[in-house]
Amino acid sequence: MSSTVNETLSLLKNHRSVRQFTNQQVTDEQLNTIISTAQRASTSSNVQAYTVIAITEPELRGKLALLAGNQEYVERCSVFLVWCADLYRLKQVTAPHLGDKPSYEDSLENFIVATTDVALAAQNAAVAAESLGLGIVYIGGVRNHIAEVSELLGLPELVYPVFGMCIGYPNQENDVKPRLPIEAVLYKNRYNKEQSVEQVIAYDITTKQYMLERTEGKKDTPWSQVMATRLALPHRLHMKEFLDSKGFMQQ
Amino acid sequence: MSSTVNETLSLLKNHRSVRQFTNQQVTDEQLNTIISTAQRASTSSNVQAYTVIAITEPELRGKLALLAGNQEYVERCSVFLVWCADLYRLKQVTAPHLGDKPSYEDSLENFIVATTDVALAAQNAAVAAESLGLGIVYIGGVRNHIAEVSELLGLPELVYPVFGMCIGYPNQENDVKPRLPIEAVLYKNRYNKEQSVEQVIAYDITTKQYMLERTEGKKDTPWSQVMATRLALPHRLHMKEFLDSKGFMQQ
Repeated sequence: MSSTVNETLSLLKNHRSVRQFTNQQVTDEQLNTIISTAQRASTSSNVQAYTVIAITEPELRGKLALLAGNQEYVERCSVFLVWCADLYRLKQVTAPHLGDKPSYEDSLENFIVATTDVALAAQNAAVAAESLGLGIVYIGGVRNHIAEVSELLGLPELVYPVFGMCIGYPNQENDVKPRLPIEAVLYKNRYNKEQSVEQVIAYDITTKQYMLERTEGKKDTPWSQVMATRLALPHRLHMKEFLDSKGFMQQ
Repeated sequence: MSSTVNETLSLLKNHRSVRQFTNQQVTDEQLNTIISTAQRASTSSNVQAYTVIAITEPELRGKLALLAGNQEYVERCSVFLVWCADLYRLKQVTAPHLGDKPSYEDSLENFIVATTDVALAAQNAAVAAESLGLGIVYIGGVRNHIAEVSELLGLPELVYPVFGMCIGYPNQENDVKPRLPIEAVLYKNRYNKEQSVEQVIAYDITTKQYMLERTEGKKDTPWSQVMATRLALPHRLHMKEFLDSKGFMQQ
């Protein structure tokens, strides 16, 4: 056996987003394990600037599914989590120590710290869930109508929902999608614009072929073209105003 | 054996940051495995908006160690990676498709997408490395002098270093630090300010005790007070001007 093969690596390499789930429910013990494992991820200077909200009320699930772009699996999965960047907790619990002293929870730096903290914890949760035989999908759609979602969840200032996550027992067999060649994302010592373009040309051929196979010859859009369509969308341009209204990134 | 015990969970739960490494080197095969495993993490609509730069030149390592706050392990670890949020690649490869059409790579939404993408991939890399018996530590210090770091690495517009990562064979035995009680970070259906405060009071007792034990009675600062000291620092207030100069978050 090679020194670069093990159970955890196989698990990570076999990740695919799951959007169809069986009726089997995730237990409280499993959810507890998933979240406490998420908490073990690295966090900048131990700030732990995140909060997870598990949505158990069916009515609330329905509203969130609709707001997230009518994604029915938000309603139907066993566990739906909303992962929030949270600088409010820090502000709240440090206030007695700080008194009138100025503080910087509202800096762009701390916005990056909180957003990164959420993502590191969530990815640990994803891996933990998959190790238990569960499937997951991230739901960026919670940012589609972020103000409404935040109001429904009673999120205070300095808290924003970064993404949702559906968890449940998979009821689908889907492919592991091809990613960019490693040479497109890994450079030595300096950024390399030419290497990037060359590798994307190769990846366009791969994705075109993959698309043709998956759609039985109906579609052959290469990755760069899919990305062009995406970048041309004025997607979630409300984020600036929303995050400003929540007190983020004031300095 | 309980249904919530397995090898991957044990690995995740035993994470601790490693800052002292033996002289044994990480092989190219191992690094390749770590990065290709990172690539399997979820990425928003498959944008893969990140780039990793492996720093192999000793002189460059020395400069980065100094800029990151004189963290010698940046220089001494076997592999040092700089994880960058990258919207430049997308802009570059979609330009031929878009022609004169407007595009939104410079939105705050896409800044969040790229930052999140980096963190999900990096956390997969961290888990992959640890599964190989390696240790890691994230280095937020690459943002201390972010303009200088970016220049040294030749980062173009719409690319920024989110954090670094040291990887190597551990040469230390350190504790798994206590985290917030799960009830402080996991709520049901709605945010709960009171629950948060109560749990932090409990955590302050835990962290005070932990600190006393670790420092043999010399220090007993509870978590909320450590956080207060941190929030009162005008830390990395250059981020706004820097990211603006790199073309991020224009809309």
